[in-house]
Order: sequence, then C-alpha cells, then structure tokens
Amino acid sequence: MTGRLDSWVASANTPETDFPLNNLPYGTMRHESGQLHACVAIGDQALDVTAMAKDGFLDLPEEVFRSGVWNDFMALGPKTWQSFRDYLSGALSAGSDQKERLAPYLSPLETARLELPFTVTEYTDFYSSRHHAFNVGSLFRGPENALPPNWLHMPIGYNGRASSVVVSGTDIVRPHGQLKRPDEEMPVFAPSERFDFELELGAIVGQPSSGPVSVQQADDMIFGYVLLNDWSARDIQAWEYQPLGPFQAKATATTISPWIVTKDALEPFRTSTPAREKALLPHLRDAGPMLYDIKLEVGLAPMARAETVISRTNYSQMYYSAAQQLAHHASSGCPMRVGDLLGSGTISGPREDSRGSLLELSWSGQQPLSLTTGETRTFLEDGDTVTLRGAAVAADHRIGFGECRGTLRPARA
Amino acid sequence: MTGRLDSWVASANTPETDFPLNNLPYGTMRHESGQLHACVAIGDQALDVTAMAKDGFLDLPEEVFRSGVWNDFMALGPKTWQSFRDYLSGALSAGSDQKERLAPYLSPLETARLELPFTVTEYTDFYSSRHHAFNVGSLFRGPENALPPNWLHMPIGYNGRASSVVVSGTDIVRPHGQLKRPDEEMPVFAPSERFDFELELGAIVGQPSSGPVSVQQADDMIFGYVLLNDWSARDIQAWEYQPLGPFQAKATATTISPWIVTKDALEPFRTSTPAREKALLPHLRDAGPMLYDIKLEVGLAPMARAETVISRTNYSQMYYSAAQQLAHHASSGCPMRVGDLLGSGTISGPREDSRGSLLELSWSGQQPLSLTTGETRTFLEDGDTVTLRGAAVAADHRIGFGECRGTLRPARA
Repeated sequence: MTGRLDSWVASANTPETDFPLNNLPYGTMRHESGQLHACVAIGDQALDVTAMAKDGFLDLPEEVFRSGVWNDFMALGPKTWQSFRDYLSGALSAGSDQKERLAPYLSPLETARLELPFTVTEYTDFYSSRHHAFNVGSLFRGPENALPPNWLHMPIGYNGRASSVVVSGTDIVRPHGQLKRPDEEMPVFAPSERFDFELELGAIVGQPSSGPVSVQQADDMIFGYVLLNDWSARDIQAWEYQPLGPFQAKATATTISPWIVTKDALEPFRTSTPAREKALLPHLRDAGPMLYDIKLEVGLAPMARAETVISRTNYSQMYYSAAQQLAHHASSGCPMRVGDLLGSGTISGPREDSRGSLLELSWSGQQPLSLTTGETRTFLEDGDTVTLRGAAVAADHRIGFGECRGTLRPARA
Repeated sequence: MTGRLDSWVASANTPETDFPLNNLPYGTMRHESGQLHACVAIGDQALDVTAMAKDGFLDLPEEVFRSGVWNDFMALGPKTWQSFRDYLSGALSAGSDQKERLAPYLSPLETARLELPFTVTEYTDFYSSRHHAFNVGSLFRGPENALPPNWLHMPIGYNGRASSVVVSGTDIVRPHGQLKRPDEEMPVFAPSERFDFELELGAIVGQPSSGPVSVQQADDMIFGYVLLNDWSARDIQAWEYQPLGPFQAKATATTISPWIVTKDALEPFRTSTPAREKALLPHLRDAGPMLYDIKLEVGLAPMARAETVISRTNYSQMYYSAAQQLAHHASSGCPMRVGDLLGSGTISGPREDSRGSLLELSWSGQQPLSLTTGETRTFLEDGDTVTLRGAAVAADHRIGFGECRGTLRPARA
C-alpha cells in the first residue's frame, strides 16, 4: 500500500482529510458567475479546472470542461483519464514548481456550492449484496426461500429513473403513492408511511459499448464511484412491484455524493468477491479483484438533534462487482453510454448493525432502532437527515467520498 | 369528424396516404450534408423544416431546429405547438400563396433516410391492455389469478432503457442472455430461443414536471404518439424477472416509427377508456376521452417471402390512457422531462387474432401460428421482418403513423 503523497496544499497532508493528493476526486461547483465549473478536491480546497482550461493551462481543449460536468472528459477515454490525473498529481505535489500558477485557482471547499458532477445518462440499480438479499427475502418469503433461484447466477437489477438523481444536500420531499394497508380492501393515495434509505455505492460508466463486453472490458469502462442513497418507499413498493418490479417506490429521489472518486485512486484497495457457491457462467466470471475495501457508515439525525451512526459496513461485502453488473447489463446488446450510473444495491454486512437500510435494521418495523437522542425509529420521520459516509482507509491517509446527505421534508399538502 | 383538408401537394389528397394535410407528422431525416434535418410529412413528400428555419422562413429561432430532432421545439410548449401547426396547415393548404416559396423545401419521402425524430430522454414501458395482462397472466398463473391485485388500481409500468430505442428499419440482432431451460439444473448463456415483438403505441412527453400532475395536466404535457415495438426475449425474462422485473429481456432494442403524430392530428379520434370495474383513485380518474381510435396491425414476413398480417387490433382497447400513465408516473414526485417516451404496453384486443405478441398469438408456443407462406411460427425466426402499422381512419382520409419495421438478424457468433 502506497503511503500518503504530500501536497503543497497543507490541508491535504493530514490523516483525517477525505481528499489527500492520493485521492483527487472530480466534482462540479456553481461559480459566482452562475455557471457550472469542474473542480478537483485537494484537502479543504477546490481547484477550478474549468477556469484553468479556459486560461489555457491544460493539454485538453477548453470545450472539454465548458459544461462544468465531467461527461465530455470521461468520453475521452482511459488514456486521457490517466494523463490528466498524472498532471494533477505532479502539479499539486509538495515541491512542484506549479504552486504559484495553480494557487489562484483554489478556493475553500467549505463555501463551495457543489452540484451533480456529471449528467446522469441512465440509472440502473442492482441488488448485489447477499446479506441484503437474504434479509429482505427472509422478511418476505422466510429464510428458506430468501434468495431467488436466479440470484447466485447473475447480478439482478432494474432500470431506475435518471431524472430523480440529485446531489448531496438536496432536500427530499416525502412522496405520495398508492398504499394498500393490510386491513383495508382498497388502496389509498397517501404519503408513504414506510420511507427508507438504502446505502449503496454508484459506479459511473465512462466509456460506451454497443454489444456484450467481458468483465475485464467492463472494469476498464468504469470511470469512478460515488456514494448513493436510493431513497425507497417500502409501502408503495409492496403494492406496486408485482409483476414488473419497483417503479414509483424508487422514483422520488436518489442522492449521490458530489465527488467522483476515480478507479485510479481506489486501485490500492481492490479486493476480491467471495467464494462462489455456484460457479458463474463464463461471461460473468471474476477476472481479478474488482471490489474495493471501502468502509461505509450511515448517520441518522432527527431534526436539530445529534446524529446516531446506525450502520457500519464495507463495500467489500458485495457478491457482485460493478464490473460484473456492467457485463451483465451489456449482455443482451443493451447499448451503454458515458454517464450511465449503476447502483450497487443496498450494501449490508453480516451483522445486525451492518445492515444498509431501515427495512433491515428495524426488521420491517418489528424491532425499532434506538437513537442516542432517546428516540426510536422504524422508518424515517419528517426532518430526519440521513448521511452516508465512505472511505478507503490506509495507515496514514484515507480516500474519502465526502458526504451523501439528505433531509426528509414533509409530504406536499 | 372533419373531412380531408386539401393541399397543393397533390399526393396528400388521396384516401390512401398516411400523410394528408390533416396529419402533418414530425420527423427527422439525414440531409445530404450528413446533418439531421427536422421535417414534416405531407403526402409522398418531406418538407425540410431545418432548412426553412435556416432561411428565416419561420417565426421561430433557427436554433430550435438546428439539432434536427424535435426536443427543443417540444420544450417551447403547447402554444408554440399550435401556432406552428396552424402555420403549416395554412401554408400547405390548397390555394395557399406560399406554394412557390415552400416547394423548394420538398423532397420525395421515398428516398429520405429517416432517423429518430427526438432524443429519447428516458423510456418507460407500461402494461395497460387488460386483454394482454389477462392473456399473459393466464399463461403463467391460470385465468382465475390472471390479473395482479394492483392492476385495476394503477397503470403498472417499469423503467426501460432509452439507449435501446431505434428508428424503424434498424436491424435487430437476436440477443444472448441467461436462459434456464426447464429440464436443466443450471442456466446457460445462449441466444434467446423465444424472441418476440410487442405491438405498442408510444406517447412522447413534451413538457416537464417536477411534482405530481393531474390526468388533465398530463394529457396537456403529451406532444404526440409513435408506433412502438418492444422487442422481448421471453426466455430471458422468465429467468430474470423475479423479484425486480424485466431487465435484459427488454434491453436489446425498442423500435419506433419515424413520425411523431401530434395530439392535434389525433384530436377528432378521441375515445374513452372502458367502464371501470373498480373505481380509480381521484388522481387517476378519467378527465375526458384520452384514448384514440387507432387501427393497428402487425405483419410478419419470413426472409424474402410474402408478409402475413398476424394481428389486427385498436388502441381504443386500452384500460389506461397515456395521460393516466403519465399522472401515475409523476405521482411520487418523479421528475418528467421533455423527450420521455411512454410505451402503452402490448395492445391486445379481445379476439384471438387481435393479440399483440407472439407469446399470446401462439399461446406461449403451444399453438403455432400459420403464415400464408405455409410456414408456422411460435416465436420469431432469424430473417423475419415485423412491421407494425397504424392509422386513425376517417371516411375520406387517414391519420397514418408510417411503418414501424425491424428485421431479426442471427445472434452474434
């Protein structure tokens, strides 16, 4: 494991920062002009890449960063991803002769207004944590029938709604939907009473495909990762999902963290998927370690009160990697495009306190969760703020994702 | 019912043409320069709108038609939709003084290379024909449990894959996928053996929403309609769809007809949904006739052999209108955007020969269908061409959709 790389941005040289020189995640901020600017996080600063490109600092055409989002850059491909990262690494490293040229492009992250770092082309959500699938399956069908028969053979997924993806910090309005209460004959249209979060990681497709791809090709197509909260209305889902799957239950909002952590930054933290209970078909077989050791946690804070960390888990728990998900996604010839977002599925670990949703943590509401404030929770209450955090952690530094946060507001009147 | 409006384009004044002056559907063609040009069909001619806008002929800024697709025009809203249609109706009508100015912008449809008329933002597919849902449910669960309990309360739908939408005439490659044969323990990855079409109508969302909308508001948001073939791999679907719905089974391709038939053109053909077995919740209740009397048919032609019309049905058979589908889609607060495409779901009528898929026509392969060539079909064979046709038919004219055609090519080696 490489040690921390030092930068002339002093705040980047601490064990606590999410953004040491080893990380260099890509984001988008609202410039004072109102325009979106692409930026890179380093310590407690944001480096304005759009302004640098405009001033002719970069080897890349100004147009690449004009929109302020990273899609056009992603489209340039892995060689450009590497050379740009190499440039930034050098220019921001301690002792670089670029310090005086670059310093004017830094501004404090604290006051940056961060926006979605890429235009989400299409959004797909998977279901690839075995612990999560087992927990949910046990709740609905009992432990002996928990895993559907296809689950060990392919990463089950469904198409989500790209228009619903929002950046961390965006308020979430409790949705209305059709609910069928168990003791009533007819459904009602009412605010969801079982609104939940889902702790996930999102993989961003950075290169297109027009036919099936191998797991290795799929891994090469992935540009980076974000934290992802797939807000879920359990009661809407229970009534609507047969026979065509989740629809409005998952369409209100999906929050992502504002920084794209690149595959390069995560490279030292690669881990393998677990031993396979059933051999995978060749086109989905592991082609090397394609999960990552990323520590994850979920904080829940009632309005104006202290946060309780209600779950701690790790992305390395997944049964299928994003590369396997993408290889499955493209297997029918489905065209994949730059900016497609693939949700991992809820990341639950083996322990009760490593579950990635309230559905699991409160066992479908049967076991209310105690918060440090003295309150309890089964599902989310108005005013609750959910914050996902994640980092790959080395001895003297961490590759952090920043926060993925949202506050639940009351349903529309 | 208004009679046929006569045009100075003589070919538009026949009972057989799909494109009389009453229609004026919007398309996109590849100009000899290689650029996409927006165009309007009139008789056997295409009117080049992008060129007209460039030459300053229109009241609208040139930029609106620069991309050649209709999204920017749709975004301008219903008043502009109306005024532009009024302009075209007048300028193309018999006796118009615009004939000499417009004639140079006409070119024969026969040689036009038509492309997708709009950029598909997101694609959603519904399941709103009661006959289809009953047939499919009967095949899988028996007639007594055919309709899922939610079906009479909401238009069931799932998110599809926008990247898979292609224009009529595009070849379709038989997909690979995971199949679980009934007599084998393990799934295989192989070409689909039960590849099918689905006869649908697609509604195009022309105005955005950021919260729930009423059925009337939803109808106002719809710009127009296309024919839609939701190619479906039944064997992939059977193995993958529990518990999250169809995914790769529907991701290979979805073909649409090249002409957007506007809501205005269809206005005289509005019809009501059927009597409701169970009252709908207020937000989904009918707010006027929002289906259309559109005759539909499906032709199947084996390679280099004559076509058999294998199904004849009507869009007026649907249980839910596109407006109801859209109102449901937005009910959770799901943001809807210009260019969203909503598939009606397979349109099956009550008779055996009015079913909209081979799954139903061959009763899941148990009753092979006879073609006029002497061949039979259960599911599609390589080389088969499927052509959907549709028109709202009046005494002396028809509002036609043009063809929605695709030929199935063999699976990749």
